[in-house]
Amino acid sequence: MSASSSSSTLPAFMSTSGAGLDTIFRPRSIAVLGVTNTPGTVPHDIFVNLLNGRFNGPVYPVAPRKRHIAGVKAYDYVLDIPDTVDMAILVFPGRVCELALEQCGQKGIKAAIIISAGFREVGPAGIEREENIKAIARKYGMRLIGPNCLGAINTEPDVHMNASFARAMPAAGSIAFISQSGALCTAVLDYAQGMNIGFSKFVSLGNKADVTEVDLLSYLADDPQTSVILMYLEEIRRGRELVQVAQHITAASKTPKPILAIKGGRTAQGAAAAQSHTGALASSDVVCNAVFEQAGIIRSKSIEEMFNTARLLAYQPLPRGNRIAIVTNAGGPGVMATDAAIERGLELAKFSPDTTAKLKKALPAAANMKNPIDVIGDARDDRYRAAMEAVYEDPNVDQILVILTPQSMTNITTIAQAVCEERKGHANKQKPLMCSFMGAKDVASGIQILQEHGIPHYVLPEWATDAMEDAVRYRLWRDRKRTRTRIHEDVDRNKAAEIIKRASDGYLIEPLALKVLAAYGLPVVPSELTQTADEAVAAADQLGYPVVLRVVSPSIVHKFDVKGVMLNLRNAEELRAACGEMRAAILQKYTTGDIAGFLVRRMIPAGKEVILGLSRDPVFGHVIMCGLGGIYVEALKDVTFRITPISEATATRMINSLRTAAVLKGLRGEAPSDIPAIEDCLKRLSQMATDFPDIAELDINPLIVHPAGQGCHVADVRIRIQKQT
Amino acid sequence: MSASSSSSTLPAFMSTSGAGLDTIFRPRSIAVLGVTNTPGTVPHDIFVNLLNGRFNGPVYPVAPRKRHIAGVKAYDYVLDIPDTVDMAILVFPGRVCELALEQCGQKGIKAAIIISAGFREVGPAGIEREENIKAIARKYGMRLIGPNCLGAINTEPDVHMNASFARAMPAAGSIAFISQSGALCTAVLDYAQGMNIGFSKFVSLGNKADVTEVDLLSYLADDPQTSVILMYLEEIRRGRELVQVAQHITAASKTPKPILAIKGGRTAQGAAAAQSHTGALASSDVVCNAVFEQAGIIRSKSIEEMFNTARLLAYQPLPRGNRIAIVTNAGGPGVMATDAAIERGLELAKFSPDTTAKLKKALPAAANMKNPIDVIGDARDDRYRAAMEAVYEDPNVDQILVILTPQSMTNITTIAQAVCEERKGHANKQKPLMCSFMGAKDVASGIQILQEHGIPHYVLPEWATDAMEDAVRYRLWRDRKRTRTRIHEDVDRNKAAEIIKRASDGYLIEPLALKVLAAYGLPVVPSELTQTADEAVAAADQLGYPVVLRVVSPSIVHKFDVKGVMLNLRNAEELRAACGEMRAAILQKYTTGDIAGFLVRRMIPAGKEVILGLSRDPVFGHVIMCGLGGIYVEALKDVTFRITPISEATATRMINSLRTAAVLKGLRGEAPSDIPAIEDCLKRLSQMATDFPDIAELDINPLIVHPAGQGCHVADVRIRIQKQT
Repeated sequence: MSASSSSSTLPAFMSTSGAGLDTIFRPRSIAVLGVTNTPGTVPHDIFVNLLNGRFNGPVYPVAPRKRHIAGVKAYDYVLDIPDTVDMAILVFPGRVCELALEQCGQKGIKAAIIISAGFREVGPAGIEREENIKAIARKYGMRLIGPNCLGAINTEPDVHMNASFARAMPAAGSIAFISQSGALCTAVLDYAQGMNIGFSKFVSLGNKADVTEVDLLSYLADDPQTSVILMYLEEIRRGRELVQVAQHITAASKTPKPILAIKGGRTAQGAAAAQSHTGALASSDVVCNAVFEQAGIIRSKSIEEMFNTARLLAYQPLPRGNRIAIVTNAGGPGVMATDAAIERGLELAKFSPDTTAKLKKALPAAANMKNPIDVIGDARDDRYRAAMEAVYEDPNVDQILVILTPQSMTNITTIAQAVCEERKGHANKQKPLMCSFMGAKDVASGIQILQEHGIPHYVLPEWATDAMEDAVRYRLWRDRKRTRTRIHEDVDRNKAAEIIKRASDGYLIEPLALKVLAAYGLPVVPSELTQTADEAVAAADQLGYPVVLRVVSPSIVHKFDVKGVMLNLRNAEELRAACGEMRAAILQKYTTGDIAGFLVRRMIPAGKEVILGLSRDPVFGHVIMCGLGGIYVEALKDVTFRITPISEATATRMINSLRTAAVLKGLRGEAPSDIPAIEDCLKRLSQMATDFPDIAELDINPLIVHPAGQGCHVADVRIRIQKQT
Repeated sequence: MSASSSSSTLPAFMSTSGAGLDTIFRPRSIAVLGVTNTPGTVPHDIFVNLLNGRFNGPVYPVAPRKRHIAGVKAYDYVLDIPDTVDMAILVFPGRVCELALEQCGQKGIKAAIIISAGFREVGPAGIEREENIKAIARKYGMRLIGPNCLGAINTEPDVHMNASFARAMPAAGSIAFISQSGALCTAVLDYAQGMNIGFSKFVSLGNKADVTEVDLLSYLADDPQTSVILMYLEEIRRGRELVQVAQHITAASKTPKPILAIKGGRTAQGAAAAQSHTGALASSDVVCNAVFEQAGIIRSKSIEEMFNTARLLAYQPLPRGNRIAIVTNAGGPGVMATDAAIERGLELAKFSPDTTAKLKKALPAAANMKNPIDVIGDARDDRYRAAMEAVYEDPNVDQILVILTPQSMTNITTIAQAVCEERKGHANKQKPLMCSFMGAKDVASGIQILQEHGIPHYVLPEWATDAMEDAVRYRLWRDRKRTRTRIHEDVDRNKAAEIIKRASDGYLIEPLALKVLAAYGLPVVPSELTQTADEAVAAADQLGYPVVLRVVSPSIVHKFDVKGVMLNLRNAEELRAACGEMRAAILQKYTTGDIAGFLVRRMIPAGKEVILGLSRDPVFGHVIMCGLGGIYVEALKDVTFRITPISEATATRMINSLRTAAVLKGLRGEAPSDIPAIEDCLKRLSQMATDFPDIAELDINPLIVHPAGQGCHVADVRIRIQKQT
C-alpha cells in the first residue's frame, strides 16, 4: 500500500498558468490601437478611461492619420512608438486585428487585451480567426485576454488601470471578479458602486483564447490585494486543473482565499442560451455541482447571493462555528431571522449565565434576554451597545447579527455608530458581525455609516443568514481533514489492461466485465461461462446451489425480455430445465450465433441494493457515481457524483450526502449495512478510472450490500469501452 | 349520494367578521386618549400623524389638565367632547386603559385602537387585563384593534388616516398589508417608500384581542381600493375560518384577489421566539403549508419575496400561462434569467415565424433572435422597441421580461421610456411585463421611470422569475376546477358513533377500530376475534387460508416484540401451532388478563404500501395525511397533508403531490396501482373526521394497494379517541 498526496503540494501547472499575467495587470506602459476621437465609441472610451482613471504610466494612442487623441500625441502604427510598450489593447475587426497583433509582437509587447467580438462565437470563420491570433500570441510569447471582452481593471494605487470600456473605475477593495460575460461586468460594477463594494482586480474573460479562469486563479492565488475571488462562468474548459487550483487556493495554500462562482447554464435551456453567445460546451449540471463541492468553490445562484457572501468574507473574520446571536429591536424580524438561520443549518447560541446577567442589568424587564435578544421598540443606542457587548464577550457566540427597524424612538445613525464602535472594541474576538437595518429611506444614513466601516449590511436578515451559512461551510471546508487517495496495490492492472486493450468500442461481454472488476478487487461472485446444460450443471456443482443462469450475448440488450436471466435455481433439475427454457425463449427472437454462452453464478443472498457507476465527462473526465437502488429511489433520483480520483474521506462523504443514507445506516432498528464495503468499491472503481481512460461508462446495478461486516456483491455490471484517440 | 358545495358560496361568518370595521378604517372623527405635548412619545406622534397626514375629519386630543395639544383644544375626558366621536385611539397602561375604554363605550364610540403593550404577551396578569378590555368592547358593541400594536392606516383620499406611530404616511396604492409584528410595519413602510410601493390599508394586528386576520380579510374582500392582500402572521387562531375566507377571496369571489403571507415561526426555534413576544400557539409548519396551499394563499419566505410578487400582481395583469419571453442586451444575464425561469417551472416561449421574421428585420445579424432575445451590448431604444413589439404581438408569449445592463452605448432613460410606451401600446394584450435594469447607480434614473409607470422592476432577473412563478401558480389556482366534497351515503354512521361514544380516551382495540373503518366503507379484510385455537381454526375455515393471527390487547403496544403477529399461516396445523407459540411468548411478559383475544384474518396479497392518517391540530382541526409506506419513504418523510373535509379533486392532488407518486403510477413498466381506491379511502376518512371530532388520531399503516382495478386493503389500523370537551 502506498499513498499519493491529493492537495498539500502546489499543482505543477500553476506557475506556467499564471506566468506573464503580471504584465497584463501591472504594465508600465500601454498602447491603445484603433482609437478615435469620437466619444461613445469603445476604443475612445477605453483610452479616456485609462487617462481619466489616472493610470500610473504613459498611454499611447495608435490611430493612423490622427495627430492626437484627447490631447495625447497619436502614432500611425504601434511600431512607430519610440518607447517600450508593455501591453496593447486592440479594438479591431477580424483580419485587421491579426495584422495589428502581429505588429504588437514585433514591437516586443508581451500582453494584449482584444476587446473586439467576431471570433469563435460567430462560427467557423471566427474560429479560424481566433486560431490565428492564438498562433501570433504563441509566436511572440504574449499573454492575451479576450477576444470579445470588456477589458481588465486593477485598482492597486501604484497601477490604477481601467483598461475597459466600463462606465466607471470601481473603488479599491479585496474582491477579485472574473466574468465570462462582459455585459454582466457593467451591471456588477454599477451594483457594487451602489453598495460601497471595492475590487482588487476585475476581468472580463471573453472567449478565453489564451487566458482562462485557471490562469487567473493561478495568478490571484498569490495576489496580496485579493482576499476573495468571484467568478461568473458559462463554460469550463480545463476542468481538472480548475479543481486543483481551486483546492489549492481555498484550502491548501498558506493564505487560503474563498472562491465563489456562478455557473450560467444550469438548465438545458440556459445552457442552450449560453451556447448561442459563447459556443460553450456543456457538462451536466450535476457534475458541475459535484466539481464545485469537491474543489471547495462556493456555488452561488445569483449575483445578489454571491455578493452577500463575498461582503461577509471580505470584510469580516471567518466564523469559528455556526452559533449565532441575534440582537433586534423588533420581535417579528427576530422570528424571521431565527427561522431563516435554522433552515440554513445555523444554531441559536445558548448564552452563558454571565451574558444573561449582563442583559438583565442593562435591558428593561419587558425585553427578551434569550436569543434572539429583543431590546424592544423604544431602544436607543445604549441598549444596542449593552447587548452587543454581552454577546461579543460570550464564548458560546460565534457570529453576531444586529437587526434594526426604524421605529419612532430609534436613533438610527447613533446606533450605527455604536455598532461600529462595539465592533472595533471587540476586533480581537474574531467574530463576524452583520447588520440588517430594515427599510430603505429612513435607515439609509445608518447603512451608509455601517458600509463605510466595513460592516456587511443586508436589507433583510434572511440574506445575512445566507451569507453566514456560506461562511460556516467555507470554515468547515478549510478545517476539513485532508485525506489521501489510497492506491490499492492488490489490483491486477495488467489483467484488466489486457482485456480492455483487446476490446473494440462497445460493451464488454459479461464474463470479461466481471474479470475486469475482479482484477480490481471488486466483490464479484464466482461464475462460469458454459455452453451446454451439462456444463452448466457441472459448474453449479462446483459453485454450490442455488444459482443464477444468465445468457451471455453481445446482441441481447434486454435480457429479461427473452427470459435471459433466471434466478434461484435450487438444484441440477431446476438448472437443466432453466437452460432449456432460456434457450428456447431466446431462439424465438435470436439465432444460436447470438448466444456466446450461459453464465452460471452462485445466487447472492438478499440485501440492500446500491448502484455505482463511472462515466466520462467531456470537461472533467471520469466522474464516479453512487446511489441507492430500487424502485423508490429511481423515482427520487437520489445519487451523488465526484470526479476521480477520490480520497478516503470522499468515499465516506459520498454516501453520507445521499438523502437515503439513513436506509443504509439502519432504519427502524434494522441492522446497518456494510458501508465500508461500499466505500472500498468506490475507491477501487476510482483507481480503475485513473488507470483506464478508455472506460467510457461503467454501471454496477445493483451492488447487493449485506449487514455490517458481511460485505457486498456485484449482481450485475456493464462496461462500455470507447478508445481515447 | 348527495353533495355539499365547498367554495362557491360566501362563508356565513364573513358578514359578522367584517362588520363594524368600516368605522375603524373610515371614521368621521377620532379621539386620541393619553396624548401629551412631548414630541417623540407615541401618543403625541400619533396625534400629530393624524393632523399632518391630513385626516379628513376632526381629531380630538384627550389629555387631562392640558389646554391644547399641538395647537388643538384638548379635553380632560373623552366624555367631555361635545361632538360625536367614531373612533378612539388609546395609549394607556393596563388599568387606566380599561377605565378609558369604558368611558369610550359610554361616549358611544364604536371603534378603538389600543396601542399600548402589557397585555396577553406579559403573562397571567396581562391575560386578565386583555379579557377585561374584550368584555368592555363586547358590552358596547365596539370593534377593537390591538392591544400592543402600531395602529392602522387608510390611504383613501376622502379618509386619509394615519392612525399609527409610523414615521410617515405611505403612498396610496392597491396593496393591503396586515402584520402581527408592529415593528415589522415600520421596516415595511420604509422599504416600500424606497421602491415606490403604495398601500390601500395598513394594519398592525397586535394581540388580536378582537379583530383578527379573519375579520380583516372578510372586510378587505369587498374593499374596492384593495387588489392584493399581504399578511405577516406569527399565530393563527381561527384556522378553519381563515381557510374559508381565503378560498373565497382568492378564487370564489366575483373579484378575486391574491393573498400572500409570511408565517413567522416556521422552525421550532422561530416558533419559540414568536411565543416569547406574542404568546402564540403553534401548529406544525407542515400543517401550515398544507393549509396555505389549500386556501390558495401564496406563501412567501421573506419580505422581499412577498413584495416582489405583490408588485407584479398589483400592477400588471395576471398571466395566461407560463411561457415567457426575455429581451436582453447582455448574454450572461439572459442565461441567468433562463436558468432561473426553468428552475421555477416557467417555459421559454417558442416564437412564431412571424416574430422571428420581425426580429431578423429589426436586429443586427449578430443578435440572437431566439428566446432569450439578445439585442446585443450596443443596443439603443429602437432595438428594445422592436423586440418588445414582436413579443407583445406573439400569441405564444404569456409574459415578458426586459433586461438591461448599463453598457457604454446604452441610453438608459430613453430605453425606460420606450419600455413604458410599448407597454401602454399593448395594454390590450393582457401580458404582464417586468424589467430588470441591472446595477444600482447608473440605472437608477431608468428604474425611477419604470416604477412611476407601474412596471415592476427587479434588481436581478432571478427575482422577476420568482414573481412570475407565483403569478402562474395563482393563475392555476384561480382557474382550477372546483370540485365538491362528496358525501358517501353508504356509510353506517350510527354504528361508528356507538363505538366511539362508548370508548374511553385512548386507543380502540383492533376489532373495534376495524369496525369503525368498515362502517365507513374502508376496505378492511374480514376477521374474527377468537379466544382459543379451536375457535381460531373454525374462523379460518370460514375465512379461507392463508390467514394472519394477531393478538388483541389494550396493554401490548409492540406486538412484534412478543410474537403478537404471525403471518401467512397456510393451514389448520400451522394456525394451531401459531396460537400456542404466540400465547406462550406473550405470557412470558404479560398475564392472561392482558389478552383480549386473537384476531384471525385472511392474509392480504402483496402490494404497494401506503400510509393514511388523521390527526387533530390545535388550530386547524382534523388534518388528513397520505404518503407511501416502506423503509425508503420513512427516510425521506414524503407525506402530504390537507385539512378536512377534502374535495374530490383534493384527494387526487394529494397523491400527485407526493415525490414518490411515480411509484404508484408504475415505474419501469410496472402495472400502475389502484390510485382511485386510495382516493376513495381518503375521502371516506375525511368524512369520518367531520362526523367525529373525538377522533384524535387515526393511522392506517400500511394500506396495501393492488394493481389498478384490484383495490386496496387495510393491513393495520390504530385509532385514538380523545373526547372533546
